[in-house]
This record gives sequence, structure tokens and C-alpha cells, in this order.
Amino acid sequence: MDFVPRYKGQVDAALEEFFTNKIRGKSGIEKEAISKLREFTMRGGKRIRPLFMILGYWLNSDIDEKIIRASISLELMQSYLLIHDDIIDQSEVRRGGPTFHRMFSYEDRINEGVSIVCADLSDAYSHEALLATDFSSDRLNSAMKLMSEIVEMTGIGQLMDITLSLGDNITLDDVTAIHKYKTAQYTVNGPMKMGAILAGYKSPEKLDRYGLPLGIAFQIQDDILGMFGNEKELGKSVVSDFEEGKKTHLILYTYEMAKKNEVQFIKERLGKKGISNADFERVKEIIEGCGALEKTRELSRKYYESAIDSINDISNSPNQREQLKAMADLMVRRSS
Amino acid sequence: MDFVPRYKGQVDAALEEFFTNKIRGKSGIEKEAISKLREFTMRGGKRIRPLFMILGYWLNSDIDEKIIRASISLELMQSYLLIHDDIIDQSEVRRGGPTFHRMFSYEDRINEGVSIVCADLSDAYSHEALLATDFSSDRLNSAMKLMSEIVEMTGIGQLMDITLSLGDNITLDDVTAIHKYKTAQYTVNGPMKMGAILAGYKSPEKLDRYGLPLGIAFQIQDDILGMFGNEKELGKSVVSDFEEGKKTHLILYTYEMAKKNEVQFIKERLGKKGISNADFERVKEIIEGCGALEKTRELSRKYYESAIDSINDISNSPNQREQLKAMADLMVRRSS
Repeated sequence: MDFVPRYKGQVDAALEEFFTNKIRGKSGIEKEAISKLREFTMRGGKRIRPLFMILGYWLNSDIDEKIIRASISLELMQSYLLIHDDIIDQSEVRRGGPTFHRMFSYEDRINEGVSIVCADLSDAYSHEALLATDFSSDRLNSAMKLMSEIVEMTGIGQLMDITLSLGDNITLDDVTAIHKYKTAQYTVNGPMKMGAILAGYKSPEKLDRYGLPLGIAFQIQDDILGMFGNEKELGKSVVSDFEEGKKTHLILYTYEMAKKNEVQFIKERLGKKGISNADFERVKEIIEGCGALEKTRELSRKYYESAIDSINDISNSPNQREQLKAMADLMVRRSS
Repeated sequence: MDFVPRYKGQVDAALEEFFTNKIRGKSGIEKEAISKLREFTMRGGKRIRPLFMILGYWLNSDIDEKIIRASISLELMQSYLLIHDDIIDQSEVRRGGPTFHRMFSYEDRINEGVSIVCADLSDAYSHEALLATDFSSDRLNSAMKLMSEIVEMTGIGQLMDITLSLGDNITLDDVTAIHKYKTAQYTVNGPMKMGAILAGYKSPEKLDRYGLPLGIAFQIQDDILGMFGNEKELGKSVVSDFEEGKKTHLILYTYEMAKKNEVQFIKERLGKKGISNADFERVKEIIEGCGALEKTRELSRKYYESAIDSINDISNSPNQREQLKAMADLMVRRSS
């Protein structure tokens, strides 16, 4: 069986087991919180971070149950960060259902308050899940340190994203830096290195040359899908990035490449709620027509190829090399 | 020099050093976030949690620089949780200054969003600070596990607090349970046990008999000061607990003990903003006049004495016994 469906299934089963153990004997709001976290965490997600952790582990060890159990810590952390993100962005839809703070039926402020705390619970669970595995204390400590650094870098990326998007001065380099902090470290590089560390892989810093560009390529592709993808497959609205005012490579290239009145058309609508279908189609036509879409695709390809170039340095095993390539393809060549 | 001022000074110095190292070479929003976290963390606080960690450590080791450095993790965690709390409660004042989300000058939603993320950064710092100490990996792992359990219990207490306070069905037992989860584990018992674990103390569960009742006694006393204390010494408004609608032992005893029209007077005002000075004085008169204030003080005393009774089981050293007693007194007999 293929790497991805095989281990995704095992990760899902380990997550289910974790929540089943957590909820046992609980009542009241604690039970409600855990069951909503379970529903939100299990509802969707491609388990990309666990898969990268398992892949990193494989570089120096056979894949075993320990690493599957360790890898769920990244999904619990993902729920923690997504819940906070969706409150910050006031998003309504995530993973084909309501965002976490829309799963409660108190008044809005209470829903958000309860959700901030539930996210913090998921953060604690994330550490508990990793620490409950029986890796040696030394390796666990190193992996924990890296996990804290990942959360730190993700936070810095998030702060840059929130504050730089407010003004008109954000540059293409800023956007790439945000992608590096917020996605590349968090989604690809950090998880792989954690797995490699848990396996005792000697030079985890080598993985930077694969994980960082692949993560950036993935996020650029994600931004493209966020406007040009299929809403049903994405599990979220294709106008939400635009309505939130996200200044992506797509948008910044368009500002450079489109005609003045076209740029004006976009600036008047970016970051405002309730764009009409016709206007949104026009926005996409402008982005495509001026060449910004193709230029953004080209940039994603460039980072993708840089990641591919590093593979032979990372592993001598043909099977592992093939899987490193397959994961890169999965990340960047996906349609949703 | 006395235990408290001596080690409080050392904890403050270690916190300063941590932030100085963190901020070095940083720019932009990252620098702003760290310097605001520094200002917020250094501005106030009695360093109770670090002091309890140091006290727990002393039970099986001489006090050294390692435990001072480890103890700052609890202040970084405290900033993380306080920032989220103040957003949830929409509080304006903390530690004699603005709450964290009031230290930014974007629009309200952005201030809150940025603050949620800065808090998450402080959480990551908390883990980093603990993991950066050179205790053995085994002891560090055990302490990390306990730290995650503390955050988990604090979250459960916080969820109970938010949701049970909404209805009219909260009982005295609920309030005590919230105090146990949200304060006793988090402020006294957890920190002491973490310190004891880092020192290799054999039976940390023994500390429950001291830490849990003392934490509950402290929180009951804190609720009393939250209405009857001195605003300037507290560093926060004495009407804020009441305006937030906190259902404390004070309030629930008053519902049982006061006259019907007095209870009505309080119910009409509890949880509403903008109470007049005269009305607030009347509320306090009712609570005192019906005997609820004295009954609440009595309950705090009962828990305090139960903590004191455990001391001889915890340590054979006269110096340590004296300090366990002194810390209990400091927690419960304080005026602010």
C-alpha cells in the first residue's frame, strides 16, 4: 500500500484512540470540549505534518508504532493553531464544516472565549501525546525543543501576516518570509526534523534544503488554490482569502503587472466582505490576464525544483528518495 | 535574607536575562511583541509560582541557579494564560497597567488577534526556558509532563468558570472545583511538584495535601480581596470581578444568607457594567451584614489549616517547615 494512505490511516486511528482515552469518564463542559476537539480534528485534514514526521523518521529507522503515536502531537497542535487563526480572522468555514468557534451556541464573545481555551487544551494535549511515547528522554527532549521553536516561528509568521497585511507596504520578500515562518517550518521542515531527531538521524539540518523550499512552494500553491481552486474540494470558500485582504504573491504580482484601472478595481475590493460573483470572476480574470497567475505558478515551481534537487543528499535509499519526491509532488501538484 | 525577597529577585533577574537574549537582533513586529511581553511580564506579579517551584525543589536539593532558570517557565506560562484570560473577560487593567491587548494601538479586533498570538509565543517560550536548563532529560521530561497537565487542568477550570457562570445553577461545590482546577493546581500544587520532581523528591504526590487546600484558601482569599481589597495595592479595579458577574463563595453564601430584597438588589447588578459607588458600597454592606463575608473567611481558614497540618509529613527540616508555613501565611494572610 502507498505511503500516504497507509500511514494517514494509522495516524487517524491513533488520534481516535487518543480522544477516546481522553473523553472516558469526563462530563459537563470538559466532555463537550473534548468531543468538539475530536470532531474538529477528525473532520478533515490531510495529516501532512504527521506524514512528514514519519518520513523524517524513516530516514534513520524503520517506521513503527512509536512514531505514529508521536506524530499525532502535530495534529493536536494544528487544531490549537487553526482554532486561534479562525478566531483572529473571524472565519466561518474550515475543513468543510463550521470553524471551531462556530460549533458552540453561546453568544459570540463566549463562543470565542471558550474556543481560545479549548485551543489551549489542544496545545497541552499535543505535548502530552508526544511525551507519552517511549522514545529515550534525550530524543524526546530534543524533539520537544524543536516543537517549541516551530510554534514560536509560526507565531512570528502569524504576527507578520496580521500586521503587514494592514498597510500598503508589504513586499514580495515579506510574503515569502511569512510563508517560510508560518508554513515551511511548521508544515514541512519542522515535522520532518522532529521525526529525524526521534530516529537519531545525524544531520537534521540537511533537511532544511528540502523542507524550507517545499514548504514555500506549497504555500504559494495554497494561495493559488485559495482563489482558483474548487470550493468543495478545498472545504473552504474561495473568496475568503480575498475578503480577508490576504496580500499574496498573486496579488502583489498583479499590482506590478496589471493595468492601472485593473489594479484599482482589485484594490477597491480586496479585504472587503460580500464581493459579488461577477466582480470576483473579474478579479480572477485580471490576475490571470496580466500574467501574475503564471508568474506565481513559476515561482512555486522554482521552489519545488530546489527541494527536489536536495533529495539525493538526504538519503541513499531509492525507496526513500522516491517517497521524498512523491510527497513533494503531493504538496505542490495537488488540486485541493 | 528572607526566602521570598531573595529568590523573587533572582527570578526577576533570570526573566530579564531571558528577554534580553530573546530580543537581541530582532526587528519589526517580532521585536515589538517580545518587548511588550517583557514589559507585561516584568511589570508586576509576586512570582508566587516560581517561588513554589523553588520551595518544592528545596525539599530534596540545595537551591541553585538551575532551578531559578527553570522557574521562569512558570512566569512565561502565566503571561500566556493571563493574556488569553483578559481577552476573554474583556478586562482593561492588569498588574497596575493596561491589559496586554490594550497595549497595542491597532483597532480592537487586531489588538486581540495579535495578543492571542503573542500569548502563544509566551507559551512556546515557557517550554523553551524549561528545556534550556541542564537537568537530566528524565527529570525534565517528567516536569514537562506535569506542566502540560497543569495547563490542561487550568483550561478545564477556565471552561467551567466561563460556562457555569452564565447560568443560575452554579453551586458552592462547583466554585470550589473551579478553584481547585484553575488555581490550586496551577498556582501552588503544580509548581511545587514540578520543583520536587526536578530535585528527585521521592513522593511528590504527598504535596497534594499542602498544595491543593492552600491553593483553594488562596483563591477564596483572592475573591474576598477582589471586592473588599485596596484597588491600588491589587493593581486592578475592585468592581471588575463583580461587573464580570463572578459567582464566588461570597456571592453564593450571600444568596443563601441575606434577605430576599437584598439578594434581589445584588442579582439586579451582578455582571453589569457601570455600577455606581453607592450601589457597590451597598452590595458590600449586604455581603458583610448577612454574615457571608465572615463565612467565606472561615472557609478559607479551614483550607489554610488543612494545608498547615500536612507540613510535618512533607519535610523533617525545621527550616523547610518554617518556610512552608511562611509561604502559606503569605498566600492567605496578605492584604493585596
